[in-house]
Amino acid sequence: MAVVMSAEQLNTFLVEVFEQVADDFHVDEVSEGRVVMRLLTSDKHLRPGGTISGPAMFGLADVAAYVVTLAHIGPKALAVTTNCSIDFMRKPEAGVPLIAEARLLKLGKQLSVSDVMLFSEGMNMPVARASLTYAIPPKSMG
Amino acid sequence: MAVVMSAEQLNTFLVEVFEQVADDFHVDEVSEGRVVMRLLTSDKHLRPGGTISGPAMFGLADVAAYVVTLAHIGPKALAVTTNCSIDFMRKPEAGVPLIAEARLLKLGKQLSVSDVMLFSEGMNMPVARASLTYAIPPKSMG
Amino acid sequence: MAVVMSAEQLNTFLVEVFEQVADDFHVDEVSEGRVVMRLLTSDKHLRPGGTISGPAMFGLADVAAYVVTLAHIGPKALAVTTNCSIDFMRKPEAGVPLIAEARLLKLGKQLSVSDVMLFSEGMNMPVARASLTYAIPPKSMG
Amino acid sequence: MAVVMSAEQLNTFLVEVFEQVADDFHVDEVSEGRVVMRLLTSDKHLRPGGTISGPAMFGLADVAAYVVTLAHIGPKALAVTTNCSIDFMRKPEAGVPLIAEARLLKLGKQLSVSDVMLFSEGMNMPVARASLTYAIPPKSMG
Repeated sequence: MAVVMSAEQLNTFLVEVFEQVADDFHVDEVSEGRVVMRLLTSDKHLRPGGTISGPAMFGLADVAAYVVTLAHIGPKALAVTTNCSIDFMRKPEAGVPLIAEARLLKLGKQLSVSDVMLFSEGMNMPVARASLTYAIPPKSMG
Repeated sequence: MAVVMSAEQLNTFLVEVFEQVADDFHVDEVSEGRVVMRLLTSDKHLRPGGTISGPAMFGLADVAAYVVTLAHIGPKALAVTTNCSIDFMRKPEAGVPLIAEARLLKLGKQLSVSDVMLFSEGMNMPVARASLTYAIPPKSMG
Repeated sequence: MAVVMSAEQLNTFLVEVFEQVADDFHVDEVSEGRVVMRLLTSDKHLRPGGTISGPAMFGLADVAAYVVTLAHIGPKALAVTTNCSIDFMRKPEAGVPLIAEARLLKLGKQLSVSDVMLFSEGMNMPVARASLTYAIPPKSMG
Repeated sequence: MAVVMSAEQLNTFLVEVFEQVADDFHVDEVSEGRVVMRLLTSDKHLRPGGTISGPAMFGLADVAAYVVTLAHIGPKALAVTTNCSIDFMRKPEAGVPLIAEARLLKLGKQLSVSDVMLFSEGMNMPVARASLTYAIPPKSMG
């Protein structure tokens, strides 16, 4: 599973294809089978009390699984999530960035499977854990 | 599993405790073990092309599971999602409201388990299916 | 989603391709998008106290999702489970048959998605709920 | 999360409380937040062709999540699985032992959450990945 897109290329690609949400996310690191991303938190991601909402956590996990897949197959805008299972385990720290560490567990012709841990930056224990499956479009598409 | 809150009471409660997102959702129907809700779609829920985003679908499923739980235990703001498994099966129709049908499968002292189907209004086949577990706070809280 | 195999054909097919476990299961009913099956319980499926074990419940849900898929695509031995999310909600009744009601929610070219409820026969509330995804082999295989 | 039971104590406990299946599993290693176990494969776990069945993989993941929980809370026979999400990613190697690496991600008063990777011994890439939630009985029980 060789890396075919850099963090910079992935950030540029997100801006091109998901202009609406590209301001919400930043790819920090890419290496073989692994990506680190962050949520660029703004008011729309917060619950009363300043903690990050469930949909915002889901959104970060979903994008991280997409990005770790693209990092290994190249820019395919049409990959789609088919399944996500997410465990919410701790309240995120208010005012602390939310970080995703995604690992690519399987890269098949039709499906990728990834595992994502979400952390409040600087904390040891994850706030959430997700596994996601993406359907990869055939080679002629994407 | 008797119903203890009406659709009107649930809508009022959402406005009180989740002011930030209450404009996004509306409870249409409540009956024993079942709730029908809708996403009041606005630009922030859409992807390019006008279809509803994954996080917005997750958000509707999550709120529907919360509401079907509250409908049977009364207003407890502190119930929290512990797990969600969601299958995305079809693209939602652009410009068509997204409807959630939530069924309460288990109501224990500590946990509720619900099943949610998401539909583009008027369509037969679901766009997504989710199961969610909520942790219910002890009686002295919530 | 037309039905292309009867309950009798499905039972015969299970014996041919899964001789080792075919004695464990029986297909009771097949209709459009839906199958009812049962576990033919024996000692190997039981926990101390006589209740059905978790792996036996998983096994029934898995076979039911496979059978409801085959009922609509025909006999393809090579379909494989890619994901299962299962909620265990109540202890099954000891000495009571375990029944699965499987519904086919999506039948694509590459994937099927099913929802399975498990019941102790004669009970109203499910003991478990599962959703399963099967990868369907290309037409030249299976 | 301090370890309170050794591998030897856990193996002894499994024999005491799950006599029926204790011959199927062996705890190899226990450390803080982590357990390594193996399936002692016999004919009942195999599919035609000699690969390990889905229910046997589920069973190993389920026991590993139980054991990693007990390793940190002590011997409580009554802990029960409430949810499992499992991704099947590769066919296990025929004739090769199946190994589970379980990590304890959360240990609350009422729930534990664990992540389990299953490997054919000696292989780098996992055959399956599971996340499991256990409900922990109150202190007066168990």
